[in-house]
Amino acid sequence: MVNKTDKPVLLLVDIQKGLDDWPFYGGERNNLNAEANAQRLLQFWRSKQWPIVHVRHSSKNSKSPLHDSKPGFAIKTEVAPQNHETVITKQENSAFIGTGLERLLKDQGSSKVVIVGLTTNHCISSTARMAGNLDFDTYVIADATAAFAIKGIDGTKFSAATVHEVSLANLNKEFATVLTTAVILQQW
Amino acid sequence: MVNKTDKPVLLLVDIQKGLDDWPFYGGERNNLNAEANAQRLLQFWRSKQWPIVHVRHSSKNSKSPLHDSKPGFAIKTEVAPQNHETVITKQENSAFIGTGLERLLKDQGSSKVVIVGLTTNHCISSTARMAGNLDFDTYVIADATAAFAIKGIDGTKFSAATVHEVSLANLNKEFATVLTTAVILQQW
Repeated sequence: MVNKTDKPVLLLVDIQKGLDDWPFYGGERNNLNAEANAQRLLQFWRSKQWPIVHVRHSSKNSKSPLHDSKPGFAIKTEVAPQNHETVITKQENSAFIGTGLERLLKDQGSSKVVIVGLTTNHCISSTARMAGNLDFDTYVIADATAAFAIKGIDGTKFSAATVHEVSLANLNKEFATVLTTAVILQQW
Repeated sequence: MVNKTDKPVLLLVDIQKGLDDWPFYGGERNNLNAEANAQRLLQFWRSKQWPIVHVRHSSKNSKSPLHDSKPGFAIKTEVAPQNHETVITKQENSAFIGTGLERLLKDQGSSKVVIVGLTTNHCISSTARMAGNLDFDTYVIADATAAFAIKGIDGTKFSAATVHEVSLANLNKEFATVLTTAVILQQW
């Protein structure tokens, strides 16, 4: 499954303490196991000595829990970067905008990108769409991502689970291959 | 609403004959008025002499109705470009990848982008997400876009209307402002 000359990169996106401010992000969230699954994948990647890139969001909104003046800017303990691991900071949803990430991945010879983190419909979708469109072989791990409930433009409420599932369906086979943590741990 | 020193650009995305091959794209489609609304907006833009960019998709898949060898590659008659209007061709979902569109918009001094076309969840969403993240003031016109039904990763079928509404909700206030054709025609 994995070509040894091109080790897959694990991209951990926005797994930051500020995302625990549920009311700020929409109230209800699905898949409370996302962080634990991301942690299992991170440990697997470390054991394989495959490349890891931590991405953190620095909000331009001073009231956001992800503003860099806030404690919420910190990456969650369970996936905290180790000293030698790459950490990049973004200000937009897509990890590819304003960060040099495309260059970084190409310079290290990475063509296969595995994306985990928060949130399914915003930063994960934006990052996965660009990764696919930039011709990276892109994977999104369904149970290592999560979404918040949102309101439709006519006020209809969509549950976090619906937002999550529709957003993954929008990505699957068009931009990325959607897999589960277990498939990676067992087959890669 | 419109600053006369910065005329909004109308970006018409993938309104091509090949999209009429519904079985290829998922079977069921919502909002059959999308093309007619895009046409009304195009006529409005022409009457205002505001900038217009037609974007067409050139599929890398030789079996796709949007492969440039197929009649479906043609832009639909109701929104066919006039001679002096800009037409760009893309091979990815996002109109900003591999096309020079960001440069083109910046060179002509455009900071406000209005997006219409097909499909809501794939090329419209990818283009609007990048437009927003590239700091364009971005608008998506809900009733001048449409989606096809898709299957979730567990096989659950999501109707075209659900895909459309959730995808617009994912965009709204995060990447773009979602408006209707009537609001533009009456207030801009």
